[in-house]
Amino acid sequence: MDKKEFLLRQIAKTNKKSYENYVVTRVIHKLDDSTVKFITQQYVRRPQKRRALTDLYLPQISFHVEIDEGYHKSIGEADKVREADIIDATGHTIARVDATLPIDELNNSIDGVVKRIREQIQIKRDLQQFEDWNPEKEHNPHAHIEKGYMDSDEDVAFYRHADACNCFGHSYVQYQPALARHAVEKGLTIWFPKLYDNADWHNVISDDEETIYERRKRDNDEFIRSYLNRTDRFKRLVFARVRDSLGSVMYRFKGFYEVDVETSRETFTITYRRKGRRVRTYAPIEEFARYDKTAIEEST
Amino acid sequence: MDKKEFLLRQIAKTNKKSYENYVVTRVIHKLDDSTVKFITQQYVRRPQKRRALTDLYLPQISFHVEIDEGYHKSIGEADKVREADIIDATGHTIARVDATLPIDELNNSIDGVVKRIREQIQIKRDLQQFEDWNPEKEHNPHAHIEKGYMDSDEDVAFYRHADACNCFGHSYVQYQPALARHAVEKGLTIWFPKLYDNADWHNVISDDEETIYERRKRDNDEFIRSYLNRTDRFKRLVFARVRDSLGSVMYRFKGFYEVDVETSRETFTITYRRKGRRVRTYAPIEEFARYDKTAIEEST
Repeated sequence: MDKKEFLLRQIAKTNKKSYENYVVTRVIHKLDDSTVKFITQQYVRRPQKRRALTDLYLPQISFHVEIDEGYHKSIGEADKVREADIIDATGHTIARVDATLPIDELNNSIDGVVKRIREQIQIKRDLQQFEDWNPEKEHNPHAHIEKGYMDSDEDVAFYRHADACNCFGHSYVQYQPALARHAVEKGLTIWFPKLYDNADWHNVISDDEETIYERRKRDNDEFIRSYLNRTDRFKRLVFARVRDSLGSVMYRFKGFYEVDVETSRETFTITYRRKGRRVRTYAPIEEFARYDKTAIEEST
Repeated sequence: MDKKEFLLRQIAKTNKKSYENYVVTRVIHKLDDSTVKFITQQYVRRPQKRRALTDLYLPQISFHVEIDEGYHKSIGEADKVREADIIDATGHTIARVDATLPIDELNNSIDGVVKRIREQIQIKRDLQQFEDWNPEKEHNPHAHIEKGYMDSDEDVAFYRHADACNCFGHSYVQYQPALARHAVEKGLTIWFPKLYDNADWHNVISDDEETIYERRKRDNDEFIRSYLNRTDRFKRLVFARVRDSLGSVMYRFKGFYEVDVETSRETFTITYRRKGRRVRTYAPIEEFARYDKTAIEEST
C-alpha cells in the first residue's frame, strides 16, 4: 500500500464524523509533510485510565490529537477492541481540539496543534531520532536488520510471522507456527501470541505492558507443569497478534520477556515479565536457514 | 446555518468518495480563508456540453475544481438533477485535478489550484468586486437592498418568496403565490417558477438561460390565449425554484425576462427572453405594504 492509499484509507475512517474529518484533514493538509505517518482512531492504554481511542496518532513523535465534540464517544464493539492494536501511550503527548468552537477559533486551535507537531518533529530531527515515513520499509525485515535493533517504543509491526523471524537470522519464505527459535541467540524464542481471551487461551497483557499472563483453557495444570520444564522457552521476543488501524492482522513487537518461574508455579499462570524493549536484529544466517527449518509445534 | 455548519455539510457530501474528500479538504484548508464560500458537487450547464457536476465551486470567483478519478462519474438520479440548482458556467474557470497522480504530485497539483484561486480572489479584491462570504447576509433582503441591485451572475438566491419580494419594496412576513407585483416599478412581476417539467407545467429554461418556455399541461391553448391579453404580466423578474447544494428549496435569481409575444402566439408556448441580468432593489415602501397585500392568484 503506498502513502496515498494509506492516507486516504486513514481519512476514510473519519468520514462518517464530519468534525473528525474536518480536523484530521486540516492537520494533515496544513502540516503538509509526506514524511509523517498518520493513524486515525488509535486505541491507547494510559496509566490510571481506561482504554480509549485517540482521533489522530503520529507514531513517529508519539503525538495524539483528541477531538472533543461535546459528547461522550463510545470506543466501539468489544470484539473489535479485543483484537485492536492497543498501544501504551504512557509518556505520549496528547493535544486536544475543541470541535465545538466557532470556525475561526477552531481553525486557530488546529493550527496551534500543527505548530506543536512541527516543533516535535524538528526536535527529533535535530537529535537524528526522526525516521521519515516509508511504507515500503517499515514492515520490511531488511530495514530493521540494517538498523541493527528493534524497539517496542518505535512502532514496529509485521504483516507475517516470517518477516518478524527474518529479523533474527532466519530466511523464511513462509512461517505459520506461533513459536520460532531465534536463529542466532540460543535460548531465545520468537512468539506470536494473541494477548486477549480467545478460543484456547486466557491471555492477558497488563496495561503497562510489563507483564503477560498465559493460561490454557483446557488442561491448564498439565500445560503449566510440562511448560515449567521447558527452560529453553522461557525467554521470548513477543510479537502480539493485533488488527492494525485498517483491519489487517499484524504482529506488533512488545519487547523481550522472561518467565517468572516462582509466580507461574504459585498461580498456575505462566507469567512473563518484560526484561527489555530493545533487541538486536540479525541478517540471515545461511547455515541455519538451510538446516533448521523445523517448526516449533506449540501454538498459542 | 453558520459557516462551520455549512462547510462541514458541504464536505460531508464528499465523504463516500475518498479522493474527492481529500482534494476538497486540501483546497479548503490550504486556502484557509473563511471569507470564501465553497459548494461541493455543483450542477452546471456549459455551452456545447451536457449538464455535469463539478466537484468544488467557489461562487464568488466563478471558479470550479473538477477531480478526475480515472472513471466516468454519473451525475445522479434524474429526479434529483431535475430540481437541482443548475448554474450556467459559461465564462467560469474550471481547474482540473488528476487524483490518480502519486501523492506528492497530487498535492502539488492541488496547491497549484489553490494558488490560482488566491490570485483570482486578489484580482477581484483589487477591483473591489469581491464580497466576503457572509451566510447571515447572503439570503437576507436587507443586504441586497443596501447593495442597490441584484445580478444573476452573483449567486443570488432566497429561501422564501417573501425575502425575494422584500427586495422590491414589499415587507411581507410570508408570501406563498408564484407571482407578485413589483411594489415600485409598475408593470414588473416577480415570478417563482419551476423551470423543469412538473405536475402542471412543461417548463424549460435554455442552456444559456436566455430563454424560458412555459406551457400548461392542461388546457394550454386556452391558457395561452388568455395570457396574451395580460400585458401587465409580460415583464418578469425570475426566481427559479431549485434544490440548493444541501437539498433545501431555494429561489435563484435568473434575471429580468420579457414575453416574446409573436413567438408565443405562433408556438403556443409562452416564450420569455432575458432582457437583463441586473435589476435595481428597493427598500420597503410603507404605503404599498399597508394597502396592497393582495396576492396575484396565478400559480406556476
